[in-house]
This record gives sequence, C-alpha cells and structure tokens, in this order.
Amino acid sequence: MWGVTQNIYDEDGFFAGYSQLPRSRRGLEGAPEWQSLRAMLPEEMAGLRVLDLGCGFGWFCRWALDRGARSVTGIDVSKKMLARAQQESDPAIRYIEADLDSLTIAHASADLIYSSLAFHYVTNLEALVVQIAGALPRGGQLVFSVEHPMVTAPLHQGWSEDSEGAKAWPVNHYLEDGPRTTNWLAPRVVKQHRSMATYLNMLLRHAFTLTHLEEWGPTEAQSAEDSSLLDERHRPTFLLVSTVRR
Amino acid sequence: MWGVTQNIYDEDGFFAGYSQLPRSRRGLEGAPEWQSLRAMLPEEMAGLRVLDLGCGFGWFCRWALDRGARSVTGIDVSKKMLARAQQESDPAIRYIEADLDSLTIAHASADLIYSSLAFHYVTNLEALVVQIAGALPRGGQLVFSVEHPMVTAPLHQGWSEDSEGAKAWPVNHYLEDGPRTTNWLAPRVVKQHRSMATYLNMLLRHAFTLTHLEEWGPTEAQSAEDSSLLDERHRPTFLLVSTVRR
Repeated sequence: MWGVTQNIYDEDGFFAGYSQLPRSRRGLEGAPEWQSLRAMLPEEMAGLRVLDLGCGFGWFCRWALDRGARSVTGIDVSKKMLARAQQESDPAIRYIEADLDSLTIAHASADLIYSSLAFHYVTNLEALVVQIAGALPRGGQLVFSVEHPMVTAPLHQGWSEDSEGAKAWPVNHYLEDGPRTTNWLAPRVVKQHRSMATYLNMLLRHAFTLTHLEEWGPTEAQSAEDSSLLDERHRPTFLLVSTVRR
Repeated sequence: MWGVTQNIYDEDGFFAGYSQLPRSRRGLEGAPEWQSLRAMLPEEMAGLRVLDLGCGFGWFCRWALDRGARSVTGIDVSKKMLARAQQESDPAIRYIEADLDSLTIAHASADLIYSSLAFHYVTNLEALVVQIAGALPRGGQLVFSVEHPMVTAPLHQGWSEDSEGAKAWPVNHYLEDGPRTTNWLAPRVVKQHRSMATYLNMLLRHAFTLTHLEEWGPTEAQSAEDSSLLDERHRPTFLLVSTVRR
C-alpha cells in the first residue's frame, strides 16, 4: 500500500473526508483557486492533447474534453478516485493508474500538461519534470498548482501569533526541502516541502520558461462568502505556476 | 528631506549605524549573500556598460571596474553615501545623485543593471522596471536583491514561536503589498512590501525572462562562523533574482 510516495487517497478515512470537500462534491467550481488557475490555461483548448497528472475524480479531464481537447488522459495513483472518475466519465477520456514518482511519458505526446495539488506528494519531482519536458513539444504548456511553500515549510503547521499577539502563520525550516507530516483529513499525511526557488529553478533548468505565477489567496468576495478563507490573506494557500516549454 | 521615497540613509543616526555594518566596512565580502549574487552575474564583465541602482558606498561599482567593465555608473539618493563613494573611487566611475522613484535612464545605455537591497525602498517600482527594460538591449541582464517578501510582509516584524513553542517567523498580511514601518538602525524606516508574485510577474510583463532565483539563507559554514545567522535558515533573508531582457 505504501510505495515511494504515500498513497493516502486510498485510505478509507482520508478518502471519505476528501470526498466531502467542496472541490470533490462540486468539482472545479468548488475549488476557490480554480478561476485563477483557469486564467493561466490556454484560451483555446480545442485540438489540444491534454494530460492531467493527479487527475483525482476527473473533473478537469471532463472540463478539457467539453472544451474540445483532441485527447484527454488522466493519471492518478488512487484506485478509488479513478474508479469514481471512470463511472462519471466520457469514454473518450483515458484514465491510467500510475505513480507520478515513477512515471514515464511518451516523447512529444501532449500539448498541455496540467496538475492540481499533486506535485507536493511527489518525492522525486525532478525526474517527473524531466518526463514532462520530454512529453511537451516546444511551445507546449505546463500549468500546475501546489500547496504554497510557506504553508508546507513549518515542522508544526498551524496558526499562531506574532510578538504583538496578532494572528500570524509561523514559518520555520523554510530552506530545508523534504518531507513534512501533517494531520489533514487523516493523521500522518506526508507532503514534500520545496521552497519557491526549488520549484522555479527546477523548471528553468529543464527547458521551461516561466510565464506567470500566482500566490493564491481569496478575493474579498470569496472571504465574505466563506469566512473560513479570511485568514488566507495572511499567507497564500497555493502556488499556481504557468510555464512554456522552450 | 522626505521625497516620495524616504531617504533614511542621510539621517545622521541611520547613516552612523549603517556605516558600522560589515557590508559597509568590509564591502562586498562583508555581505553574506554576495557570493550567491556574484554567481548570478555574467562570468565575463569586461566590456560591459554597468549601471548600479542604489550604489551606496560604491563597492560594486569599483568591483565592476576592476573586472574590466567598459563604463560604470552608480546612482543613489543619499548625498552622504555618494560623498564617501567619490572619495574612495576611481574617477572612471560616474556617480549620479537621483531618486530611483523618478529616474529616467537613456534607451539602450547599459548591458548589465545591478541593484542590491534598494528596490524595497522604491514606491513605484513598476515605473523603474519600465525604465530598466528600456535601458537594456535584448540579451541585457538585470540582477538584483531585495529583502525577502516573507521578511517584509508582517505588520510587526520579529521572531516569535509556533503553536508548539518552537522558534518561528510569524507571517501575516503577505498578500497586501504596500509600505511597512520597521525599526532597523533607526525608528520608522519605511520599506515597501511586495509578494514574490508581484516582483516576478512585474518583470515578466515588462519583457524580462527569469533565469534564476535564490531565496538566500546562510550556508552551514556561515552560520558556524556567525551565530547571528543561525535563525536565517527558518526564513530566507533575501530574494536574489537574475533576468534577461527578451
């Protein structure tokens, strides 16, 4: 059950909890960062060969197919998520069960590679980035999101206070890339912390040009609608990155 | 005395304190981040037209001239720093007193633009970036450092503890760009906080390609030699950025 990368999504308790999140029940529109991520995708999806790394329930795969993608492939390590994705899906979408940590992707086989909140589970991200760079032709796009490095850095993640007693997100060990264990939906979920520099320099080294980056936090309208998002102005929740293969 | 940008360097107390820092007394080698910044500069400086924005005492200007730069210009708003720079300097270096917030730079007049820890004082950085983009020909380089956004973000800057009592740097208001007032060498020093995304997207918008980025923290050897640097592994002190004009 435990490979190089922890497959927490197939544990009963985690899967049950994850299935109840707005992003699982309502799909892309249930994810507060989706509109920002969508704005970083190609305006015209028609005709593209799309690959989704960590496709989960397949919401993005179906979205891409609806917009005229020529082919859509979703990859995930979770049997449970893929089973549900296949139930709800169009047979034109190909789902593959595979571990992103040991994935091989055919040369020049995709025009757009997308990944939402999956790379921070991958132990050997550099090997995956090499595969992605090989899979994209010149001009192909990689658009992805991860938990923001400021969120993944601390050894003990949780809100605290600054020296004046104001609410703050305490950061430590930021420059030490490596695994962090948190209790999110289940005890002992392991994620890989990487600094912003680690992510960006890895992409620059492997023939990607950075085109845009978002440190996502909620808009005022979003915070007004969902007060659980209010604190997220203090430190960005997600890092969204758009790159082009050069 | 106070323009759009605060010129704190010409205040007696601040100037006296700043003059005692290792980076003021020992020059580039007294700045712990210098070796990292130097590694981002062109290997061959000979023949380049170099412009240093916020040149202070002129250490970098002299370094560039020593390495064969064709011309070197240093710009700073501080009369006191320029006076000392000129005393110690080679007449081949041209020093100009000017505010980076209202600077005009001649078109295609530099091959390398360098700035160390000055941009976080600039109120209208976007106008300056437009000037820099115009001053560099295609292939010209901009290399700069600023205080890291994680350092400038909090309203009250200072070490605190996480929820478990471990030392941590408390971050809040990260997504709110704007002035922050700190007490560093003098009371009420005003710096401009900008998120990582603000810095990088501004450069990408204005015809720069990102080539490398460092979130600088001390090496183990540096921390062993200077224990005041030990905490800086928890959150990077400086952001170092290398870009090419496209």
